[in-house]
Amino acid sequence: MERRTFLKKAALSGAVIGLADSIIASTVNIPSSAKITLKEGATVLFQGDSITDAGRDRKVSTPNTSPMMGMGYAILAAGALLEKYAEKHPVMINKGVSGDKVFQLKARWDAECINLKPDVLSILVGVNDFWHTKSGGYKGTARTYETDYRALLQRTKEALPEVKLLIGEPYAVLGVNAVDNSWFPAFDEYRNAARKLAEEFNAVFIPYQKVYEEAQKRAAPSYWTHDGVHASLAGAQLMAKAWMQAFE
Amino acid sequence: MERRTFLKKAALSGAVIGLADSIIASTVNIPSSAKITLKEGATVLFQGDSITDAGRDRKVSTPNTSPMMGMGYAILAAGALLEKYAEKHPVMINKGVSGDKVFQLKARWDAECINLKPDVLSILVGVNDFWHTKSGGYKGTARTYETDYRALLQRTKEALPEVKLLIGEPYAVLGVNAVDNSWFPAFDEYRNAARKLAEEFNAVFIPYQKVYEEAQKRAAPSYWTHDGVHASLAGAQLMAKAWMQAFE
Repeated sequence: MERRTFLKKAALSGAVIGLADSIIASTVNIPSSAKITLKEGATVLFQGDSITDAGRDRKVSTPNTSPMMGMGYAILAAGALLEKYAEKHPVMINKGVSGDKVFQLKARWDAECINLKPDVLSILVGVNDFWHTKSGGYKGTARTYETDYRALLQRTKEALPEVKLLIGEPYAVLGVNAVDNSWFPAFDEYRNAARKLAEEFNAVFIPYQKVYEEAQKRAAPSYWTHDGVHASLAGAQLMAKAWMQAFE
Repeated sequence: MERRTFLKKAALSGAVIGLADSIIASTVNIPSSAKITLKEGATVLFQGDSITDAGRDRKVSTPNTSPMMGMGYAILAAGALLEKYAEKHPVMINKGVSGDKVFQLKARWDAECINLKPDVLSILVGVNDFWHTKSGGYKGTARTYETDYRALLQRTKEALPEVKLLIGEPYAVLGVNAVDNSWFPAFDEYRNAARKLAEEFNAVFIPYQKVYEEAQKRAAPSYWTHDGVHASLAGAQLMAKAWMQAFE
């Protein structure tokens, strides 16, 4: 079938909906050369705050199990990776902890990152570093976030020189519940710091803010997040798909 | 790029792994004309046993939420559907209950199916109808399963003439834990009954047994299921992808 005929038929059959995948790919926009190649038996570690934790059972330490993955983007991303790369036998671990800021990751970094010897380390942190200055009496700034985060990444690279890094952009969806105009542009400093650090450390960067913005062309902001910060199930799938773009 | 060149490059870069999706599509093999078109605001109901329940929080009655979906194929399938068809604003509900056989679905069918007025009803039931004859003292046969299941589907079609049905094949993975040679060919009668009923009721049929068999060419049986009956996270993703084939 010629391309033009195909596209016309696709449009007529409503297949435009199926473009969601290509929209995510072009939004995340990771060059092939920057994508991560999983090695056999690779350990892939999720780290972060409540968005990653998502109600996981912290008593469960067995990789690749649903209770360890929680009920957010991590279970959807782990499921996708385990299926897509089954031949590689990946080992998926989630150690996200609700409420964490960078300095709290630091406090548990040996036990819950370095000692697990991840081959791939995925970090999503930053929203609490900002949010808790508004509501929780936290005194850190965007500079604190960047400095602490850089030190954490340096320490990681020293202990695990071969680790592949995946840094998620902290995001906030304006107009939904907790997130009002007072978040911007202040919060953008945290987003920019994460992007800058991804470049410095040669990490794959997942631009979640842009992913959520693109998604709002398809359904209302509240479809993707109930409070502007935590993903709905639909939003979690969006994030998981964006996250999967990191792998070739 | 020419097709031949593309395929060659794809093979060289290890992209053969990416064929997983097309393998699932050809394994499930649902003709386009049989696929379900979601209407705006469609309610999609999961029904079944522990494979569907998968530890969901039964106190949660809010559709589209992770706790309602549990930690099995339903959360992965719901996430996929909510994202892919965001423009349609689907309403996803999970009412699977661990241990259920067909007669137990019957007992709760008004409250947990008919009254919810699903536009799409997805049922996966049958493994306990067989398993509990081996270990639980249950006296039903494959004929009981078929007769009870037919009556349940008739009742459903009478109450909801427009409902689109999706029937999952009960499956069991030989050689993993609970599932030994004594399951076959006896268990095949349940699989065949489900397929026959799918034809009778014009339901989309998801051949999970074949999906698991194909997957074993990619990784060991125990990678996909820990006891031969319940899906691992990798197996749950496999099922979710197969399930998503039902929709156009």
